[in-house]
Amino acid sequence: MYSKYIFRQLYSQTNNLNIFFKRCLSTNYGLVYEQYGNPLEVLKKCDISDKTNRSLKTTEVLLAYKASPINPADINTIQGVYAIKPIFPAIGGNEGVAQVVEIGSQVKNLKVGDHVIPSTSSSGTWRTYAILEDKDLILIDKEIDLLMASQLTVNPCTAYRMLKDFVNLNKGDTVVQNGANSAVGVYAIQLAKEWQINTVNVVRDRPDFTELKQRLLSLGATYVITEEELRQKDVMEEIWKSIPKPKLALNCIGGKNATDCMRHLDHKGVMVTYGGMSKQPLIIPTGAPIFKDNRFFGFWMTRWYRDNSGNNERHVMMKNICDLIRDNKLEPPKSVAINLDDYKEAIEKSMAGYSNTKYVFTMN
Amino acid sequence: MYSKYIFRQLYSQTNNLNIFFKRCLSTNYGLVYEQYGNPLEVLKKCDISDKTNRSLKTTEVLLAYKASPINPADINTIQGVYAIKPIFPAIGGNEGVAQVVEIGSQVKNLKVGDHVIPSTSSSGTWRTYAILEDKDLILIDKEIDLLMASQLTVNPCTAYRMLKDFVNLNKGDTVVQNGANSAVGVYAIQLAKEWQINTVNVVRDRPDFTELKQRLLSLGATYVITEEELRQKDVMEEIWKSIPKPKLALNCIGGKNATDCMRHLDHKGVMVTYGGMSKQPLIIPTGAPIFKDNRFFGFWMTRWYRDNSGNNERHVMMKNICDLIRDNKLEPPKSVAINLDDYKEAIEKSMAGYSNTKYVFTMN
Repeated sequence: MYSKYIFRQLYSQTNNLNIFFKRCLSTNYGLVYEQYGNPLEVLKKCDISDKTNRSLKTTEVLLAYKASPINPADINTIQGVYAIKPIFPAIGGNEGVAQVVEIGSQVKNLKVGDHVIPSTSSSGTWRTYAILEDKDLILIDKEIDLLMASQLTVNPCTAYRMLKDFVNLNKGDTVVQNGANSAVGVYAIQLAKEWQINTVNVVRDRPDFTELKQRLLSLGATYVITEEELRQKDVMEEIWKSIPKPKLALNCIGGKNATDCMRHLDHKGVMVTYGGMSKQPLIIPTGAPIFKDNRFFGFWMTRWYRDNSGNNERHVMMKNICDLIRDNKLEPPKSVAINLDDYKEAIEKSMAGYSNTKYVFTMN
Repeated sequence: MYSKYIFRQLYSQTNNLNIFFKRCLSTNYGLVYEQYGNPLEVLKKCDISDKTNRSLKTTEVLLAYKASPINPADINTIQGVYAIKPIFPAIGGNEGVAQVVEIGSQVKNLKVGDHVIPSTSSSGTWRTYAILEDKDLILIDKEIDLLMASQLTVNPCTAYRMLKDFVNLNKGDTVVQNGANSAVGVYAIQLAKEWQINTVNVVRDRPDFTELKQRLLSLGATYVITEEELRQKDVMEEIWKSIPKPKLALNCIGGKNATDCMRHLDHKGVMVTYGGMSKQPLIIPTGAPIFKDNRFFGFWMTRWYRDNSGNNERHVMMKNICDLIRDNKLEPPKSVAINLDDYKEAIEKSMAGYSNTKYVFTMN
């Protein structure tokens, strides 16, 4: 059976002998955990060839992962403190980019060699090989740099959907956001610029504020202000003289700062919460929903993919985003590649507090 | 001119000589204020005959008010602490029922003798006569008791709209509400019962809790619990064994209790805030909007009327409510009639803290 499998692989992989030989060298493994805990302790490098060394069903696709980032949510999932609760034994990782190695007989939209990203959450991307259903894969442009490609599923798509799905934004409208230098925030600035939407971007005051402000302005931010400035009536009145009040507020902070943001929302304006970095709840003065008709929603990319799994909109979104990347309209995040074999070092660095740098596993 | 006016009135009022003679006796007055302040000080009884002793325009209607309640929002408006800011001099009062005395030549849907309620907010209903546009009047069933009729605009309609407009409630679904013994809360219980929707009704603990519970159960409440019980896991788990988790939460309290209510909301469940009796803001744990997809809206009946002024839905709603009243399916609020002449006494009593009794001015 195994020799038959190798022969089949060899046959289908003549254009990718490198992958073939690496697989033969028993490099079919993943970072597996069987209980919640400190990722440095519970994650083990395990052989998972039993999961992939079999014939494909008609709609299945055999993938060779190329790159997969370490996101804070991945760490939290392993710690058992995230909303996603995997079934043990589980493989770490949520995002990643893979190359198609083999396709089932009924797979129509993908071919061997394509680059794809999984749209199911926490499918376990810290691995070398996987078999997934074709419906759970999104084709992406092969020209996109692999480190960037591996980070498309969550951050740029979160910014994209929040700007698209909650209010009808027209050219010249305004969005206010806090945590504007977060990964999602930076994509929101760039997408809004592309769509001619004004952004008022709130960040914490910091020693290098001027530098950060310049960077965000260069990416297309309309205004960049500190949390303190957001509370200064004269600063804000000056802004609202030149652009309209926001129809939309994006909130990843919560607490006092989120309340300060919502005070500037226009009538019927919407606040979308996608994070709570202050660890404080959202605090809404009663008058905002009653008299100003402000509305409050949440957004979670994982749910969006779940609710839209059979929906072509996933592909439309990803094509739009890939086109913008290829046209240099979306700046790639600062990423450092690190081999999956060196996972302990990478995870340790990722967990070592705040950093602008994303560590991305590379494999195959 | 005046004699011509009297003659015209006499002619159109042969079926209501009582009103006619009272108007001739200079009983055309209202409770007027020219500045914000303590209602007992700033409200004055003033002759307002200059506002009504004139010919009607084609779409205008001359009304004789019959009854008008004193609501907390009326007091707050005069104090200058409500969201509605009148133009001075202003006449107090927002709700009321009036009889049509005369109609303009183009008024088609109303006739002399009809009972109507104004749908514009704070039109000034603490008065004997008024001229309003026909589009700002809603016809109501003449059989409805006048004290009840005068209180239809806000409370029963607020309950009605909140149950209709935010989530699609089907038979057997559940609504949770705090402040369930408020005027709106009691209507929500009765409307939900009529529509076969379960209600979990939260009230503050109090010495007469058992009596209140019995009263709300007799009106159709499915469960009546204290704020403390709402926080007891075993109590709530028992309830969710017999009815589904709520799709909708109605909140007029805010603060901790609103947060306790939202914890029981189903996935995608909606909380509608229509009051903030605790004077505490709405406090939303970040996970509720992000991971449970809970949504948070506000409701203000005044805005609904403004947004639906040309809309037949006003009439549909009022007919539904009047039909339920006539069929004894909506219990009238405890009301005490008091003549508009005795306004000082009535306002003093209304401002004297918490009371289940509503004071209603009567005139004409």
